Amino acid sequence: MKFRTLEWKSGALYLLDQRRLPNRVETVICRNPDQVSEAIRNLTVRGAPAIGVAAAYGMALAASDRSALPDAGGVLKSSRPTAVNLAWAVDRMLTKSAELNGAAPADLRAALEREAIAIHNEDAEMCKRIGEFGAPLLANGMSVLTHCNAGALATAGIGTALGVIYTAAAQGKKLHVYAGETRPVLQGARLTMWELMQEGIPATLVTDSTVASLFAAGKIDAVIVGADRIARNGDVANKIGTYNIAVLAAHHGVPFYVAAPRSTFDDKIATGADIPIEERSATEVTEIGGQRLAPQNAVVYSPAFDVTPSQLITAISSDTGVELGGRS
Amino acid sequence: MKFRTLEWKSGALYLLDQRRLPNRVETVICRNPDQVSEAIRNLTVRGAPAIGVAAAYGMALAASDRSALPDAGGVLKSSRPTAVNLAWAVDRMLTKSAELNGAAPADLRAALEREAIAIHNEDAEMCKRIGEFGAPLLANGMSVLTHCNAGALATAGIGTALGVIYTAAAQGKKLHVYAGETRPVLQGARLTMWELMQEGIPATLVTDSTVASLFAAGKIDAVIVGADRIARNGDVANKIGTYNIAVLAAHHGVPFYVAAPRSTFDDKIATGADIPIEERSATEVTEIGGQRLAPQNAVVYSPAFDVTPSQLITAISSDTGVELGGRS
Repeated sequence: MKFRTLEWKSGALYLLDQRRLPNRVETVICRNPDQVSEAIRNLTVRGAPAIGVAAAYGMALAASDRSALPDAGGVLKSSRPTAVNLAWAVDRMLTKSAELNGAAPADLRAALEREAIAIHNEDAEMCKRIGEFGAPLLANGMSVLTHCNAGALATAGIGTALGVIYTAAAQGKKLHVYAGETRPVLQGARLTMWELMQEGIPATLVTDSTVASLFAAGKIDAVIVGADRIARNGDVANKIGTYNIAVLAAHHGVPFYVAAPRSTFDDKIATGADIPIEERSATEVTEIGGQRLAPQNAVVYSPAFDVTPSQLITAISSDTGVELGGRS
Repeated sequence: MKFRTLEWKSGALYLLDQRRLPNRVETVICRNPDQVSEAIRNLTVRGAPAIGVAAAYGMALAASDRSALPDAGGVLKSSRPTAVNLAWAVDRMLTKSAELNGAAPADLRAALEREAIAIHNEDAEMCKRIGEFGAPLLANGMSVLTHCNAGALATAGIGTALGVIYTAAAQGKKLHVYAGETRPVLQGARLTMWELMQEGIPATLVTDSTVASLFAAGKIDAVIVGADRIARNGDVANKIGTYNIAVLAAHHGVPFYVAAPRSTFDDKIATGADIPIEERSATEVTEIGGQRLAPQNAVVYSPAFDVTPSQLITAISSDTGVELGGRS
């Protein structure tokens, strides 16, 4: 990758500021868990795997005071409710600190730093495996639709959905990507287009509403998206608009793939109906850069995620293999 | 209505500048057909019926020189290719001028002005009848999804899709409207929300991607949209994203209605595949108010319209009655 989404340097967490992309490439430095929580909340860092890794470093940043760890974990977990990776990473850091009960503060700090780095490296490794398992799903010459950003910017590695595309491209397959812009925060336009152009993958930007006519015109051979949480029955919570695309893909007979690490599977959740769906603020819809796009006092409903039932999913590529969804 | 979309005053066409809504209520004055054509092209005035009326006035503004009429008609017709009402209105004005072959210039001018005013009044009357025929489709307490703006701002009357809603509301039915924001030009956020709030109809703004989860949650009882052109087989060209909603409505068993005047039916077109689809410029997708939303040089595909096959349409309410679509 030609950029770093997260970097741990001199005991601080450096985040590529995704709110500024694609216009500016800037870094935000976090030195305590509150700053990490704020960076997750305000979308400086986003993407389920990346916020898990960021939260792990957030816990490492709290480790100088053992008694502060549970509070730090609570603050970090509450930053965003839908992605399960966030809670998973915090809990893993809390488990590690519990194992080190009685350790000297410096030892605890060093151990939690090592644990966060391990989570970081495992995430990169997971992306690599997701890409290797998923790449055979994409054939030479395909046009692939993706939504939001499930790329290197959403992980500590090459990405999940885009990782599959990068891996297939590295194997010599010529692919063309359609990126849905992904309103309201425009992760597709701002982030996916930016990283695909950085990496030299041919890509075309479309509004989310253009998707159906692309399908109707036979311009899409496959869909691949990431996931924020996967229920036991295979239902997938992902960025709002994913479910639209899944219905349209099924209607037009186009395969619909999800790429996500095992840490996205939440065995405590039976079906998609039980996944908590975050609601975002109205201003994400009514304003862009301070410019108003809707009348003052307009009522807005803006869920950040939707749930795609397993029946609409062809297959899920994870770091342990490809499992068939309910549509296949 | 608490506002005027188009007004003919002292021999000039006054247009409510829809590019500035909802932030500013400003008027653009057109005194020749080129200015009308430019206003149609740059979306000062938009909506298939409204651009038909505007084009009629554009022809009236050319009437001082009979020899200029064919050229004016050509320029006006070329302003936007998809809406059939535009060509229909221009042809009607040309027919009228041909009938007046040999008339004195002042008489020709007066006759074409009367003809444009007649088209204007007929459009308002058509909206009224579409509303009266369509209102029984909506029951008290319904939540109705609409897309783009098929309201008073899109016509010379109360609107087509929103005209049905206004008429049902005036009959005492309590309705709630969900307005899809309609990227890239945001006619739903900027125009539909503005006029519904002006008229006191409860409305909630959603991104286009939120539509599927609204359907899944049972929050939508009916969809009603306008049309830019209707083929002989009942296929409907309308704002990009309409087809997405039609597939989703069918998937969730929610009725999908179209409201449009007879002048939108194009008997020269056999099926939707023959309707020319306008492509808009990339900057409508990549910029808002000069602010970049995507990387420099991002490739963009931005068709302005899509085609909804008749099989996905429950019924079409026009000024001559309600006819069943292929889904009923």
